[in-house]
Amino acid sequence: MSETDDRGSKSRRLAPPTISRLSEYLIILEELAEGGRDVVSSRGLAVLYGNNASQVRQDLCCLGHTGRVGQGYRVRELERMIRTTLGIDSQKKMVLVGCGRLGSTLAMHVPMADYGMELVGAFDVMPQVVGSRLGPVRVQHARNIQEFCLRNQVELAVLTVPKTAAQEVSDALVAGGVRGILNYTRVRLRVPPTVVVKNRQIICSFLQLFHDAVSRPDPE
Amino acid sequence: MSETDDRGSKSRRLAPPTISRLSEYLIILEELAEGGRDVVSSRGLAVLYGNNASQVRQDLCCLGHTGRVGQGYRVRELERMIRTTLGIDSQKKMVLVGCGRLGSTLAMHVPMADYGMELVGAFDVMPQVVGSRLGPVRVQHARNIQEFCLRNQVELAVLTVPKTAAQEVSDALVAGGVRGILNYTRVRLRVPPTVVVKNRQIICSFLQLFHDAVSRPDPE
Repeated sequence: MSETDDRGSKSRRLAPPTISRLSEYLIILEELAEGGRDVVSSRGLAVLYGNNASQVRQDLCCLGHTGRVGQGYRVRELERMIRTTLGIDSQKKMVLVGCGRLGSTLAMHVPMADYGMELVGAFDVMPQVVGSRLGPVRVQHARNIQEFCLRNQVELAVLTVPKTAAQEVSDALVAGGVRGILNYTRVRLRVPPTVVVKNRQIICSFLQLFHDAVSRPDPE
Repeated sequence: MSETDDRGSKSRRLAPPTISRLSEYLIILEELAEGGRDVVSSRGLAVLYGNNASQVRQDLCCLGHTGRVGQGYRVRELERMIRTTLGIDSQKKMVLVGCGRLGSTLAMHVPMADYGMELVGAFDVMPQVVGSRLGPVRVQHARNIQEFCLRNQVELAVLTVPKTAAQEVSDALVAGGVRGILNYTRVRLRVPPTVVVKNRQIICSFLQLFHDAVSRPDPE
């Protein structure tokens, strides 16, 4: 299993596919707990996720959880262990840059605060947006990014600006000490090796669905 | 390399990680072409994507493109080949169910039409939304889903409804002949094996960033 992140740098952490599955297991476990379920088997979790029980057991071993043979996993306990492994039992500061339609939807729709991420700042350049409220914060002018991030020890950022502004904003975030950028623009950002960029073009999810669903062979 | 999709069914197509990389290469190539670049090397593409040249060459071999030694790839040609491989040189019909903040943002923000997906219908149950325009379509009541999808031979759907409605809507889509659902809800949908579901909880992208950026060891 690869131990490299999106940018190919070495790290001592779990591989991105494992992290991706663990984060989805977490959402599933939360739904189970909310529905009153106390215990889930590796097979039960695999059916809900869409993989197999041995993959689930292997992933949960990464947490140091070996399960109890024949008894399944306690839902709440597993939830806590995944949260600890992902690191989201501590709160980190995040900013949003680009408060247009996509940015404001992410700020309103994604429950960051429940998952260790506190939205402490939002930035834009449009006069009609700067000064307005967005969820818990007031939108500031983008010229304040670097100073704000430094002063508030911001570690994470979400980037939803027009592509012409992406690199410049990224530079300001990096100068402000930000260590991770969730990049929703089409631009491949140039950042120093100490900064993690996760590229998320939403159209790519659509393309994957398209390919898998439409070019799917008919059942025999 | 696994040939299974998200739900573990057998298929004769490219593996999801390959599809995922190809769709990102496509976006990169489009940006290069727009910037006036005619040719790109496997190494150049790898730097932009964040992997390595041998992975890029292997992926592009899937297209039947072996490149020309020492000459790099023609950007526009590669773009066309990826489009053909993904199947998006033909247009398929798509509906959106759930026209709240997230749904309407996806409809407005994601350039589906440029990638083989024609938004032909949108559905909701809220009286203040039903009847309003959303991009190219007018929002209909969700009770029309099955009949509309059957009549218009809709193949793809995007699901952005509250979780309590997710399974019921999914059943209507499946009864309407839809073959692929991009599911932005937290619910793991029960669908027949002929239907592909891609689960996309946006929070999971945030969790992956969080883990990789925050638990990243400091540079030595």
